[in-house]
Amino acid sequence: MESSATIRFVGKVERAEDISSIRIYPEFCQALLGVEAFSHLIVLYWMHLRDDDSHRGTLQVVPRRHEGAPLSGVFACRSPSRPNPIGHSVVRLEGMDGCRIYVSCLDALEESPIIDIKPYHPRGDSIPEAVVPEWTERGPPT
Amino acid sequence: MESSATIRFVGKVERAEDISSIRIYPEFCQALLGVEAFSHLIVLYWMHLRDDDSHRGTLQVVPRRHEGAPLSGVFACRSPSRPNPIGHSVVRLEGMDGCRIYVSCLDALEESPIIDIKPYHPRGDSIPEAVVPEWTERGPPT
Repeated sequence: MESSATIRFVGKVERAEDISSIRIYPEFCQALLGVEAFSHLIVLYWMHLRDDDSHRGTLQVVPRRHEGAPLSGVFACRSPSRPNPIGHSVVRLEGMDGCRIYVSCLDALEESPIIDIKPYHPRGDSIPEAVVPEWTERGPPT
Repeated sequence: MESSATIRFVGKVERAEDISSIRIYPEFCQALLGVEAFSHLIVLYWMHLRDDDSHRGTLQVVPRRHEGAPLSGVFACRSPSRPNPIGHSVVRLEGMDGCRIYVSCLDALEESPIIDIKPYHPRGDSIPEAVVPEWTERGPPT
């Protein structure tokens, strides 16, 4: 079994604001057919500024944005330093224009490569009653 | 800007059943510290059987598991054939034992490499009112 694989960048974050713009590269643009039928999407992006041995070798951190958080494994927090710097945001689709999509709630830096977009299905993806430790309630939502 | 990056496999699906078992490789095991405080996790895995040019070149499909689904871009459905064969499951954490975690609702095949685990934060990840097209309501939850 291989120990790694290659991930392709299918687009990038052009603007990161209240409403962010994502440009999908022309060769992947057909993959957007039907996206407009969904109100929310899961955006997976590559936290390119953390793609180095030091950040990818980080296994435990004290989450910075949540006051009082304990030392946590990176699989138990949303630290951008992790073995694979994959960012995950549930976003609201605000509009589309050709190969561009406009979304709110994207927690990504400008120029971040996009690696996947998936439609949000509340039947499988929404767990309002999920239990979290108290420190996650302080600070940003993820 | 690069057009691709390397993804590392941090573990694998050992058993895929009602309660599945995921083994995190020893070199990444420290990253699990504190995971037990969360009831639900987001598991990102590599759909290794789709990691070839044909499946990764597929941009539109008719979703097979949802009766009446129209031709859809792969960014508008959860098809395993997509430019990056990343699987996404919101799972319930059922137990832990050293570097193994036991979860339910994992929609992955046995031997699938694990690429990331993130804690599920309902404040940012749960959108019960998300709108979806009617065809998604038939068949499995994603």
